[in-house]
Amino acid sequence: MEFEIIKKDKKTNARVGILKTLHGIVYTPSFMPVATLANVKTLTSEDLNEIGVEMLISNAYHLYLKPGIEVIEKIGGIHRFMNWKKSVITDSGGFQVFSLENVKINEEGVIFKSKIDGSTHFITPEKSIQIQEKIGADIIMAFDYCPRNWNDYEEVKKSVELTIRWAKICKEKHKRENQELFGIIQGGIYSELREKCIEEIEKIGFFGYGFGGLSIGEPFEETLKITEFIIKNLPENKLRYFMGIGMPEQIIKLVELGVDLFDCGMITHIARTGSTLTKKGKINIKAGKYKFDESPLDPECDCFVCRNYTRAYIRHLINTKEITGLRLNSYHNVYFITRFMASLRERILNS
Amino acid sequence: MEFEIIKKDKKTNARVGILKTLHGIVYTPSFMPVATLANVKTLTSEDLNEIGVEMLISNAYHLYLKPGIEVIEKIGGIHRFMNWKKSVITDSGGFQVFSLENVKINEEGVIFKSKIDGSTHFITPEKSIQIQEKIGADIIMAFDYCPRNWNDYEEVKKSVELTIRWAKICKEKHKRENQELFGIIQGGIYSELREKCIEEIEKIGFFGYGFGGLSIGEPFEETLKITEFIIKNLPENKLRYFMGIGMPEQIIKLVELGVDLFDCGMITHIARTGSTLTKKGKINIKAGKYKFDESPLDPECDCFVCRNYTRAYIRHLINTKEITGLRLNSYHNVYFITRFMASLRERILNS
Repeated sequence: MEFEIIKKDKKTNARVGILKTLHGIVYTPSFMPVATLANVKTLTSEDLNEIGVEMLISNAYHLYLKPGIEVIEKIGGIHRFMNWKKSVITDSGGFQVFSLENVKINEEGVIFKSKIDGSTHFITPEKSIQIQEKIGADIIMAFDYCPRNWNDYEEVKKSVELTIRWAKICKEKHKRENQELFGIIQGGIYSELREKCIEEIEKIGFFGYGFGGLSIGEPFEETLKITEFIIKNLPENKLRYFMGIGMPEQIIKLVELGVDLFDCGMITHIARTGSTLTKKGKINIKAGKYKFDESPLDPECDCFVCRNYTRAYIRHLINTKEITGLRLNSYHNVYFITRFMASLRERILNS
Repeated sequence: MEFEIIKKDKKTNARVGILKTLHGIVYTPSFMPVATLANVKTLTSEDLNEIGVEMLISNAYHLYLKPGIEVIEKIGGIHRFMNWKKSVITDSGGFQVFSLENVKINEEGVIFKSKIDGSTHFITPEKSIQIQEKIGADIIMAFDYCPRNWNDYEEVKKSVELTIRWAKICKEKHKRENQELFGIIQGGIYSELREKCIEEIEKIGFFGYGFGGLSIGEPFEETLKITEFIIKNLPENKLRYFMGIGMPEQIIKLVELGVDLFDCGMITHIARTGSTLTKKGKINIKAGKYKFDESPLDPECDCFVCRNYTRAYIRHLINTKEITGLRLNSYHNVYFITRFMASLRERILNS
């Protein structure tokens, strides 16, 4: 697996890169649709392939609970399980575990109760790597400690300490071939904590770096400031993955700072609640003003939904709770963000 | 528009016919997936086209309430509204109106309250034709009276009288070109009532005939007996549409009696609750025994779902309430029934 930067923007820190995995090429900056349960909600792998998606992100924690890792292993890994022939990342599930109620954390790992059946689970960095190796994504994430509050210095400090400790274990335990491991940088909005975390994590050495503990409530100016700081302190030739953000207006600013990878469940979540991304901004397709509207969701879009369906029809489907409406809107939104990323790359390449 | 019988079965009353509409050819016996709200639940028109569906059935009553006929008219009719280039029937909505609570019936029509906003509506045969002309399906249905109870002789008798009265008005009012009108035969399981209804309805004269008021609770042997009786009393060269039935084991018996058209929401409804049609019978894909099952939904099926996905994956999606699971299972079930109809036609053609 390799990552190469092929072009740097003339005016900003944006760059275009090529990531090669066993399952194909991913051009960066790239947006990864979220396939939490080995499925991007309402879409099939065929849809995503047609859209031109190059990498998905799934979630080890969710797959561990359902359908269970042994199922995915038996079927031959996540690619075969979901019939997805291109690249996949799995998140370790740290973020999800830490957002549960009644989580007990010690130096070894995290004890939590399954929200599905109440059963108790103990996830350690070793176990997270073991799970992710069995799932078989192209890239996996170290098991980190994601603080709940962006402005609780003590918790953020603790999260940095444990994230470093666990990163070492993850690196040591990870053996699977054709699979790369990313480290995660914690430290909230505190540059001294970020600096310490980067130093230690980079000492261990990873294929790329996830930026964790951001976009959890802090003002966006703070997000940008600390992202700039993180990037300045990371080696230039490594992948930079900003975890959990992804509306176009946020992405463009982070790309300018030098971020390579993005993921965000909002793109499909808002599609299911009736929000449609267009070149002229987000619209609420359920609104009365679209009742008779014969134009496509976005008149400037050439996706299969926009080529074939009217706003009036999709509004009708979503307002009558027809699943097809959720799918058509999700398809368009994922297409929109995928094309948006391509346009950013083009702009950098032509700079 | 024309209908031609091209082959009669050697041993039964089954026949293969060709229906030509402005939107293409429909080979009969044919199964029409139900697109109540101008959408076959979970599927797109592209899916249905890929499956090989030749005609859909939508519902004038439902479309009248949502999105409203004026929307469909403005967009240019149901074909354009749902981007469906092949044939469509609309049911008049009689069946749906009569199944509501607090319906008032008089000789002119039916007064009912919308379950959406409580508004009062008065549907007459004239209005039903007007609505269906605006929707613009290839075939529309006369507005009939569907009795609530299969074994209430007095109600069934009344339904026959009003159905005949309304059929005359429907025939008289219907003017739209490239659109044919079907009459509906009521009369429950009572041969004298069916006979009277057929006589009067046939006197008015229609392009084809719907068999109404069946499959509403009566034993299936009664259904078969009265269907045989109806068919014996109808002209041979007209289309025979058994309304609202459609599991394979029922269809095969009705095809042998000479039925040409079927529709049934169950095929997609059961798909969404986890039932999968296979050559070996219906299976419950949510069952634990499929947890690790690498085989396709139906090992004898060549649909895109069966070519690409395992039972284990679809079970996982449906059990975790992922919409994609409902879609994949619906796609398969509609494909299954479409292929099943093709196999029945082939058997007749080769007899």
